[in-house]
Amino acid sequence: MQGVNLHPSIRVRKTPFWDRVVESGVQSCSVYNHMLLPVMFESYESDYYHLKEHVQIWDVSCERQVEIRGPDAFKLIEILTPRPIHSLTPGQCAYLPVVDQFGGMLNDPVLVVLAEDRYWLSLSDSDYLYWVLAIAAMKKFNVDVFEPDVSPLGVQGPKADNLMVKVFGEKLQQLKFFQFLTVEFNHRTHIVSRSGYSKQGGFEIYVEGTQNGIPLWDVLMDAGIEFNVRAGSPNTPERIEGGLLSYGSDITRNDNPYECGLGHYCDVAQTPNCIGYGALMQILEEGWSREIRYLEIKGSKVPPCHTPWPIKVGNQDAGKVTSAAWSPEFNINVAIAMVEKEFWDAGTEVEVVAPDQARSAIINEKSFV
Amino acid sequence: MQGVNLHPSIRVRKTPFWDRVVESGVQSCSVYNHMLLPVMFESYESDYYHLKEHVQIWDVSCERQVEIRGPDAFKLIEILTPRPIHSLTPGQCAYLPVVDQFGGMLNDPVLVVLAEDRYWLSLSDSDYLYWVLAIAAMKKFNVDVFEPDVSPLGVQGPKADNLMVKVFGEKLQQLKFFQFLTVEFNHRTHIVSRSGYSKQGGFEIYVEGTQNGIPLWDVLMDAGIEFNVRAGSPNTPERIEGGLLSYGSDITRNDNPYECGLGHYCDVAQTPNCIGYGALMQILEEGWSREIRYLEIKGSKVPPCHTPWPIKVGNQDAGKVTSAAWSPEFNINVAIAMVEKEFWDAGTEVEVVAPDQARSAIINEKSFV
Repeated sequence: MQGVNLHPSIRVRKTPFWDRVVESGVQSCSVYNHMLLPVMFESYESDYYHLKEHVQIWDVSCERQVEIRGPDAFKLIEILTPRPIHSLTPGQCAYLPVVDQFGGMLNDPVLVVLAEDRYWLSLSDSDYLYWVLAIAAMKKFNVDVFEPDVSPLGVQGPKADNLMVKVFGEKLQQLKFFQFLTVEFNHRTHIVSRSGYSKQGGFEIYVEGTQNGIPLWDVLMDAGIEFNVRAGSPNTPERIEGGLLSYGSDITRNDNPYECGLGHYCDVAQTPNCIGYGALMQILEEGWSREIRYLEIKGSKVPPCHTPWPIKVGNQDAGKVTSAAWSPEFNINVAIAMVEKEFWDAGTEVEVVAPDQARSAIINEKSFV
Repeated sequence: MQGVNLHPSIRVRKTPFWDRVVESGVQSCSVYNHMLLPVMFESYESDYYHLKEHVQIWDVSCERQVEIRGPDAFKLIEILTPRPIHSLTPGQCAYLPVVDQFGGMLNDPVLVVLAEDRYWLSLSDSDYLYWVLAIAAMKKFNVDVFEPDVSPLGVQGPKADNLMVKVFGEKLQQLKFFQFLTVEFNHRTHIVSRSGYSKQGGFEIYVEGTQNGIPLWDVLMDAGIEFNVRAGSPNTPERIEGGLLSYGSDITRNDNPYECGLGHYCDVAQTPNCIGYGALMQILEEGWSREIRYLEIKGSKVPPCHTPWPIKVGNQDAGKVTSAAWSPEFNINVAIAMVEKEFWDAGTEVEVVAPDQARSAIINEKSFV
């Protein structure tokens, strides 16, 4: 897509931080949940090294929230997922595989437990609100389902703690992974969780109110000068190294949670109300024949991966690569792939048919970090 | 978004025609239903004049189909819409407002009646498949709901008939607006309807099978040389002049069909199974206080509209502009707006607060062509 500009329209929504994103020199962006998502500032490589050494502010407003609020909120969420949620308490976040009646993945949101009758689903890239709203309607549940004016801002990188403690105080240091607390800013209360779409550590601030976006961005940037802060974004090689999956690329509605390697989040026998209960019980009984794996692709730097690349072993179809990038630090190509059972054991040598040339590749036991 | 590149990823799907779109010199594109949508080739203005004089081939693959197939297909569609569908027969298309339990617009697809038990919903920009699939699950309907490998290709402009008759024969000339017939190409049967997102006339070919995209593109381009064919796309000033609405910009889930000026498609009393029946009956009884209108905005050329522009009358909030562009042919700014009742009468003078400067504007009776 080199050289193709993104056309402006209302349908592709700007974020509350967008003016600052532009001033920070954004060069490439994507569209995610009908909203702009910056993806590159200086270069993919310098963004990558900076993220691993310092701290970055990420405009991830496109992780839109579905708020579910009301007496039947818990009952509604139980229908959505094969992950038992009864032990979760306010202040916790939980990665939530959500499925259709066939066990197909519809999204992979983070559930934010705000109260016993109030939840956010912080979405990956699909209009999952439509699904939740339809279920609520058909079950005649007493809930409100809506998208609140909440835009996540990521603070990611090894110096994220320094910056957040400086701005919001010591309590941020104590926050555990996938837990949240609240902070005050501009006379509003905002949720801050220890989470984010990188393996470098950090936080996500769920900024309440569009008008508070730019003031908060400015405060973080000013306070961060001593930590070498700059604007950044989810970085493809870094997230592949860390085994972070992308809905729409690595995960689709054609894949079930087990194929996606998310079985450890599920306990279907404990979730009889889940809409995918019957399908998933059958899948558990019969097994599945492909699963997500991490690959090291040998040879020269791979081109950008914007169509699935076939994986072959001899003449046999062994699966497809769904994310791939050159890792500047490890000096190898890292990849995520859906691999057929016969070939999914660690150490298996396969061939990846990239558009420029085929390359040898090795199935890894785990992700790279 | 001047100068911001679109980042390639699998999540933002390429179309079957994409290689040819790039070779044709696409300069700007958008993302629509998680798929690339070209929006500008030479310049917005020269694309506009060419569309009005000759014939263009449009890659509108992003108008994805939801196929609904099976014994309960008709019953399922009856739940989705306040438009009575019992009189539609195979071979017909119908513009279909589809709503949630509150009467809010979820999409504005074209319904393609393939058979009594087989339908396509040709979507605007939202994952409406999620809604349809959820309703089918909760009602335990005997239907399949899926996205087929079908990618619409538009043939638009005053010479569209010449080109289509040359390629597919005389029967195309007889085809009435919003009716379809089938053609054979590459040993596959494809639906061709007289329809499209312009007011210049033309067809949409629902291309079956990704592999048939490029061969068909090439045949049309070769046959079209004598008609001055070239690659084109939906054109913002042309579609605003014609009053063609854009879901996500002019229409959202916060708007009901009456507010969107789509009341003439609805007959709620005749659709008691529609999920929005109760809400829409109440709206009919109580009335609504804003409605889509067409505006002529005076003064200099407006900038691109990528956030809603407030409309004022004195200090009063009179609505918002949701689409606006300079019309090269009419030498005025044309716009679509959601206007408050007090100000929606034709001839009312209002003020549009565009980002560069405020401008005087007049409410029109109808769209411009």
